[in-house]
Amino acid sequence: MPAPSYLPRNRLDALVDGILAITMTLLVFGLKLPDDIHGDLFGALATLRPTIVSWVVSFLILALCWQRHVRDFRQVGHIDGRLFRLVVLWLLVTSVVPFTTTFIGEHGDLLQSHIVYAVNITAIQLVAVLRNLHLRAHPALFSDGKAEGHDIGWRPALIIGVSALASVAVAFVRPGDA
Amino acid sequence: MPAPSYLPRNRLDALVDGILAITMTLLVFGLKLPDDIHGDLFGALATLRPTIVSWVVSFLILALCWQRHVRDFRQVGHIDGRLFRLVVLWLLVTSVVPFTTTFIGEHGDLLQSHIVYAVNITAIQLVAVLRNLHLRAHPALFSDGKAEGHDIGWRPALIIGVSALASVAVAFVRPGDA
Amino acid sequence: MPAPSYLPRNRLDALVDGILAITMTLLVFGLKLPDDIHGDLFGALATLRPTIVSWVVSFLILALCWQRHVRDFRQVGHIDGRLFRLVVLWLLVTSVVPFTTTFIGEHGDLLQSHIVYAVNITAIQLVAVLRNLHLRAHPALFSDGKAEGHDIGWRPALIIGVSALASVAVAFVRPGDA
Amino acid sequence: MPAPSYLPRNRLDALVDGILAITMTLLVFGLKLPDDIHGDLFGALATLRPTIVSWVVSFLILALCWQRHVRDFRQVGHIDGRLFRLVVLWLLVTSVVPFTTTFIGEHGDLLQSHIVYAVNITAIQLVAVLRNLHLRAHPALFSDGKAEGHDIGWRPALIIGVSALASVAVAFVRPGDA
Repeated sequence: MPAPSYLPRNRLDALVDGILAITMTLLVFGLKLPDDIHGDLFGALATLRPTIVSWVVSFLILALCWQRHVRDFRQVGHIDGRLFRLVVLWLLVTSVVPFTTTFIGEHGDLLQSHIVYAVNITAIQLVAVLRNLHLRAHPALFSDGKAEGHDIGWRPALIIGVSALASVAVAFVRPGDA
Repeated sequence: MPAPSYLPRNRLDALVDGILAITMTLLVFGLKLPDDIHGDLFGALATLRPTIVSWVVSFLILALCWQRHVRDFRQVGHIDGRLFRLVVLWLLVTSVVPFTTTFIGEHGDLLQSHIVYAVNITAIQLVAVLRNLHLRAHPALFSDGKAEGHDIGWRPALIIGVSALASVAVAFVRPGDA
Repeated sequence: MPAPSYLPRNRLDALVDGILAITMTLLVFGLKLPDDIHGDLFGALATLRPTIVSWVVSFLILALCWQRHVRDFRQVGHIDGRLFRLVVLWLLVTSVVPFTTTFIGEHGDLLQSHIVYAVNITAIQLVAVLRNLHLRAHPALFSDGKAEGHDIGWRPALIIGVSALASVAVAFVRPGDA
Repeated sequence: MPAPSYLPRNRLDALVDGILAITMTLLVFGLKLPDDIHGDLFGALATLRPTIVSWVVSFLILALCWQRHVRDFRQVGHIDGRLFRLVVLWLLVTSVVPFTTTFIGEHGDLLQSHIVYAVNITAIQLVAVLRNLHLRAHPALFSDGKAEGHDIGWRPALIIGVSALASVAVAFVRPGDA
């Protein structure tokens, strides 16, 4: 059983919490005032409305993804190589959210922006489900050695996925703002 | 009682400390020298005075907000769903401070900048008070199961809010600098 | 024996995990859409392909370097001055990866870009090997006081080094994309 | 004795380690290639030499400052209000290093740049000494209740200060590079 010695749990937690904290904080860097605001900050912020909406939505989605991740890991006692790789993949698709979020703000009039963003959010859920399937199949990774009672998380994955699509829809019905 | 199992305390602490550390550090990115400083760095820094003042003020306010948060959480033993959502909301309005701080530095001659900034700082206090009201109403969330002795924090919230307004006032009386 | 008191292990872990988390997250800032995407986001992303490939490769390499570091430190109980300096050197060459990664994306048609990047990745491995050689030579730094069973890591260092060269080669055979 | 309950030690450590990790990592963002490198990356990097030197020097100085901080705090068991404020002040002058470091790289031909940078580094040492004087005067803050054996750190403060001045001098004797 070489798996349990692959990586200590607390170090992986530190990496995950660090990357999520940075990603959530950097979202705000997608907010940029135009160079000339003509002495009207309120007006400039009003034109930023789609960007601000996408920033808030992405922040809340990332917080929810992180909360799901922490919850799914609660009973995990050992990290094996594949679990580590699945977490890294999850971090990869998570850390790109600030980039795809700017598509919504800057090119919100393009359907393509909303598709890329929704694909990004859905990919996060998909990797989380794959990770949970891996955990389910390897009860030895749990502290108590039992996988029962640890659900795959289809429901929250679907809820977050649908939320992403809904935010896309909300942004899409007002293409004139962008 | 499903609440206590919502999220482990140490993970939420890691997220909060991480986001506050990043937000405080990123404030300094609002400081930018003009492209051409005409061989006079001291002069260029002098014209940056309003930006530098707002950076220092925001850094100190964020440190104080974080210290209040840590203090308010000292006796908290369990995180329920609503407490988590209130903390996420608090992180959202906190992480936007580097953005609203740049308004003061770059558009310090506009009253609107100071209004937006003061609203931002006040929103942080408001969410903190809401969070403390929630804690007060749910003694089961405290380690000792008692909410007595844990104050709502009206006083520091007011002090920080007034400090924000004062910094706004200080910056406002010298619009010619911007 | 002044060495063991040089630095507590948990603080160094926090610094290492923090810097790696930030470096991995900031990689994504090398991804930038052109100012004018002519209403075709998919097309713009297609032209970013070399940048996207180099971002994914660097993210995975950094994750692997971090995992190796954590593994190599598993049995370390004491930090001496030289071990600290070797870790700082490792962090220095690691934190520059987001910078050298942009060379691949923005100047991928230049052989020089690929050389600098490969040198960067190889330097990380080299410092890791030096650190392990130092550990090997000082069994007192291990919790159990024995250095046996702790390998130098030549194999993973070679694998990562060769992977870096391979990614360089992959990017190099399609210079027309850049 | 209200002081010991001001702030838990581990949370302050998390903030300090987080801010230092971010500051050290963000230094690398001072490195920027010119827009047009004329197909010669090596040449472009050569012209960046002063910037690269100042990045390496600042990274090493920050690592050393952090190590001194951790060492000075080793026996600290309680945080009072003034100690917290001194640490926040230390974080403030530390987090500005990436900004002042760019002065050396971009305006390295100006004596003013080197003065501002040296003042910045010296301010970090000064605040660290003030913090240690405060600790010395309040033995109750130490775990063992005794301040003996905890030095003020004049020596490392002087060494780091002199190193900063030396790096300034090194950069200054080659103004033609900038």
